[in-house]
Amino acid sequence: MVTLSKKIDYVQSSPIRKITAILAEARKKKDLISFGGGAPSLPPPQEVVEEIANRITHDPSNSVCYMGTRGISDLLELISQDLKKYGNIDVDPRRELQITVGGTEGILLSLMATTDQGDEVIIADPTYLGYPEAIKVVNAKPVTLPVYVSEDFQPDIERLKEVITNRTKGIILLSPDNPTGRVLNKDVAKAIVDLAVDHDFWIYSDEVYKHIIYEGEHVWVSALPRAREHVITMCSMSKEVSVPGLRTGYMYGPPEVIEAAEKLKQYVSLCPNTLVQYALMSFYGGNVKEKYIEKVVSIYKSRRDVMLNAIREYLPKAKTVRPYGAFYVFADMRDYIEPTQMGDEEFVMDILNTKDVAIIPGEHFGKNGRRHCRFTFVSEPAERIEMGVRRISEYLMENLMEKNVTD
Amino acid sequence: MVTLSKKIDYVQSSPIRKITAILAEARKKKDLISFGGGAPSLPPPQEVVEEIANRITHDPSNSVCYMGTRGISDLLELISQDLKKYGNIDVDPRRELQITVGGTEGILLSLMATTDQGDEVIIADPTYLGYPEAIKVVNAKPVTLPVYVSEDFQPDIERLKEVITNRTKGIILLSPDNPTGRVLNKDVAKAIVDLAVDHDFWIYSDEVYKHIIYEGEHVWVSALPRAREHVITMCSMSKEVSVPGLRTGYMYGPPEVIEAAEKLKQYVSLCPNTLVQYALMSFYGGNVKEKYIEKVVSIYKSRRDVMLNAIREYLPKAKTVRPYGAFYVFADMRDYIEPTQMGDEEFVMDILNTKDVAIIPGEHFGKNGRRHCRFTFVSEPAERIEMGVRRISEYLMENLMEKNVTD
Repeated sequence: MVTLSKKIDYVQSSPIRKITAILAEARKKKDLISFGGGAPSLPPPQEVVEEIANRITHDPSNSVCYMGTRGISDLLELISQDLKKYGNIDVDPRRELQITVGGTEGILLSLMATTDQGDEVIIADPTYLGYPEAIKVVNAKPVTLPVYVSEDFQPDIERLKEVITNRTKGIILLSPDNPTGRVLNKDVAKAIVDLAVDHDFWIYSDEVYKHIIYEGEHVWVSALPRAREHVITMCSMSKEVSVPGLRTGYMYGPPEVIEAAEKLKQYVSLCPNTLVQYALMSFYGGNVKEKYIEKVVSIYKSRRDVMLNAIREYLPKAKTVRPYGAFYVFADMRDYIEPTQMGDEEFVMDILNTKDVAIIPGEHFGKNGRRHCRFTFVSEPAERIEMGVRRISEYLMENLMEKNVTD
Repeated sequence: MVTLSKKIDYVQSSPIRKITAILAEARKKKDLISFGGGAPSLPPPQEVVEEIANRITHDPSNSVCYMGTRGISDLLELISQDLKKYGNIDVDPRRELQITVGGTEGILLSLMATTDQGDEVIIADPTYLGYPEAIKVVNAKPVTLPVYVSEDFQPDIERLKEVITNRTKGIILLSPDNPTGRVLNKDVAKAIVDLAVDHDFWIYSDEVYKHIIYEGEHVWVSALPRAREHVITMCSMSKEVSVPGLRTGYMYGPPEVIEAAEKLKQYVSLCPNTLVQYALMSFYGGNVKEKYIEKVVSIYKSRRDVMLNAIREYLPKAKTVRPYGAFYVFADMRDYIEPTQMGDEEFVMDILNTKDVAIIPGEHFGKNGRRHCRFTFVSEPAERIEMGVRRISEYLMENLMEKNVTD
């Protein structure tokens, strides 16, 4: 065989995607409780479902034809109005907005459009595990900024200054955060914008969870003072419309960046999915979105509370922070993992194999995530959340008892 | 604003996508005759339409959830059986097959997975205009191999040997070809495989038009002797299922390449569209595919004949080759363009603006395409094909008469 690209050796496979593939197969057979993925279990809005069925039935040819690379203009207009309504942001639908294949393509296009070989991009540690590898895919270099549970996972500005160099081309901010649920503090965000302006680097603001907030307020980073020319924002329909498998989202930013992203998208995915774009239009019509977001956030909030309470009751030695947004509890589990003498991944896989409960090892989100586990609370109903945490607790009791007998 | 990536300067925007975006808008207002795009006007199979409507209506949550990055295993199995049936190729559905976002993502992932900065990738001139820019996007270097109408656009092996260097990492073959409609000669394909083995480079075999053949036979490049370890094949549902706007396709090749492509896809588009994958399964069930391909190829063939006859009747000075496959007639128009003293793009835009007929300047497909035009014959019914060519003929008469009056 001819050789592969050198990057195949240093780009890593995303462990969550591996687990999702396993879970998709496993789900056919077993009563698996999944705290593993990043996907809600609630169905999408009925209006979106009906629009897909009606549109493909009554106008098949126009539902499956190519459309422009940027996105259908009516949809771009609706998104622009939505950003004005929720974030008070003026985004020109013709010049500053691009439809993407979920948040993932938004990240890729942003990085491709702005970085060259050797440029440095700062990311939190821990953070979403797609970032470091996406940065490597475009031949740039990830630089980590440690964040700590003791500081509520907020980025520390002094520590950030220490990792800025003359090769710094940008920083990825994710708020609300995956895996920690941290909502970015507005003053911290302002200070980061000031650094971006002073040192002339980009802020890649990943706001895929912008509507999934339980306490506090979302920070619309591009709307902060002086931010506009330095911020590229990514959003995803996977989280707010509960359609992750339809692979759609959007990005907005300075016209030059969006023009570059459109150009690159022609060679990445050519153009957005037409049927899905029509489906999304129905989400922005009437008050479909308002009602849906209100409903799902209220359900997620109650599930979060069930998850937090269950962890406190059944896993009392786990150290957690209340997540103000997103889908996850990120818990420091060292007092449980260390006595087993297992590695983090081994520990998690043993729970999956013996108790049919999936959680994700925190080390996949960065070195600082070691000995932590991520518990997704939106994918299962309340009674199964409690059951899953109880099963983990049973596992720990059996395992530690067994160890004591063996020792 | 912070600077953009250097590649934004040297990667060009695809002119076809620009034209498609304009046409999508123009179509709302005018009676445009489009010979411009690469999309069929026939509706997709009714079974595929119904599967989308039924699936989303009766099982919305499982239609829109994340699935594994590789693709749904049942679909991979069906595609593997289909490749065996039509091409007599054994493709392991678990190790050698990856679902992609159309042919476009297949090209990108293949190039990303196999090339490094400075590697050379050979492409025909003229050929599909997505290739040179995709090669630049991954930081490799396109090298052109001229092909000529006088040689039926077949690649010449001696000329190919002259452009092979020690940086050659691969060659892209497209058969049936866009824009020329050329079906690769089997002996030529075998000779290229021998060169790939001897010089140790990849063949990226773009077979998106594999079922759109009017005379002769498709060459399944990876099935040729010694080819298997050197060939990565891309296919698209856009052409054979007439669902370009659903953005789906697949690639197959050696397991190491597919594993690398899967890894990269996690950071490009995360995973395939779930609903679309279910829709595709219905295409491979029963004899839906056989019936559909037979029907559409027969219609396309009659449209091709109408287009060829109309060009011969109304544009007698255009030099054409009968296309044995794909969607296009590629005609040498120098005897019409040169007297107008216009550039190729200016000529084409003037026809679009004054006669509402869209054709594509051949120079967009490579230097050798200069003074040619591409006429798509699958997007309009027969009577409109003739009307469109007549309008171009009228344009030429008016334009040349006017010139004579002015001179």
